[in-house]
Amino acid sequence: MSRLLVRSFAVSVDGFSAGPDQDLEHPLGVRGEELMEWFFHTRTWRAMHGEAGGDTGVDDEIAARGMQGFGAWILGRNMFGPVRGPWPDESWKGWWGDEPPYHVPTFVLTHHARRPVMMKGGTEFRFVTEGIHAALEQARAVAGDRDIRLGGGVSTIRQFLQTGLIDEMHLAIRPVLLGRGESLFQGLDLRGLGYECAEHRAGERAMHVWLRKRPR
Amino acid sequence: MSRLLVRSFAVSVDGFSAGPDQDLEHPLGVRGEELMEWFFHTRTWRAMHGEAGGDTGVDDEIAARGMQGFGAWILGRNMFGPVRGPWPDESWKGWWGDEPPYHVPTFVLTHHARRPVMMKGGTEFRFVTEGIHAALEQARAVAGDRDIRLGGGVSTIRQFLQTGLIDEMHLAIRPVLLGRGESLFQGLDLRGLGYECAEHRAGERAMHVWLRKRPR
Repeated sequence: MSRLLVRSFAVSVDGFSAGPDQDLEHPLGVRGEELMEWFFHTRTWRAMHGEAGGDTGVDDEIAARGMQGFGAWILGRNMFGPVRGPWPDESWKGWWGDEPPYHVPTFVLTHHARRPVMMKGGTEFRFVTEGIHAALEQARAVAGDRDIRLGGGVSTIRQFLQTGLIDEMHLAIRPVLLGRGESLFQGLDLRGLGYECAEHRAGERAMHVWLRKRPR
Repeated sequence: MSRLLVRSFAVSVDGFSAGPDQDLEHPLGVRGEELMEWFFHTRTWRAMHGEAGGDTGVDDEIAARGMQGFGAWILGRNMFGPVRGPWPDESWKGWWGDEPPYHVPTFVLTHHARRPVMMKGGTEFRFVTEGIHAALEQARAVAGDRDIRLGGGVSTIRQFLQTGLIDEMHLAIRPVLLGRGESLFQGLDLRGLGYECAEHRAGERAMHVWLRKRPR
């Protein structure tokens, strides 16, 4: 069965995975882009945006692995966009332009129904109103043997962690302080939920750790 | 003037710098010793305990620097020992045996007065009942040009951070999950308090970061 994986999810030293006050100009919240600095410099990121060059190395190798081989993605609504409440129309199609980087069916959690949106390059946004278990079931149905990536944001990942549905979570710990924002860990007992830190590796601009369910 | 420094203070991926339920058998709380694993293996740690061998490398180099050149230390009472409330007698003299690793005057914060205790090797425990500013003032008076190390624990460091009195804080981020315990960051806006992450370095068993006051 395909696994549910978190990849390339960044967290600051003080435990924030997004800055405060997300809006159109700050998709990751204020100063949230500092979390992604390890990614922006990689060859993988640049290639995703049609640019040449970029750093190779540990960060790049890990970034590349995080984009490959997935049969479906799941995103929280706030990661999909800044629109809150009922969809006023169908004009918002994500932060990523005509050709999003997913290239597979991508399930967006929302309380408000909406028709699927087919994008260039194979990404199809499908909107799930029945909650995280339904989203995972629908993702599994299309993913086949391939794994499913849970993209974020913070609140979505916390919901999935609380149910223990995530098989493995790769975090990029960034040497920055955000001070305020969305805390990834606050109030979660990850050890009690069955997770352990199974692996770690130093990158150029982040420390990478892999959290896994402990063998029972 | 001497600086107030935190050195070699460990924190888990999920933000805890001590486990829960500190007692005589668990000076760092339950599973808190996992935080110190980066230190236990070093040549520096072993030499402090009269043993030969141990790893050299980045962790060891940083561990060694954290023990050298201080003119005074400041410790919170819970770091000094498990006794709570008024001192029942003068028998408790710290976790460290006859010859503690400080070798200089070491100021212990407490609400309950007690006479100084002279230990082997130059450590003198002096008990300060007038709060953190008084402790820092007394430490500066004896430290001369040398820096002062704030040893911990978590609650003491948080108090000093909130006043902005710490000039630099070195953290060893350990790739472990504690799940529960004493959170170092929760509810603190370190960025708002004027700190930034100024430096980072990958060790063998930890990612080291240095937080500093931003230039005004």
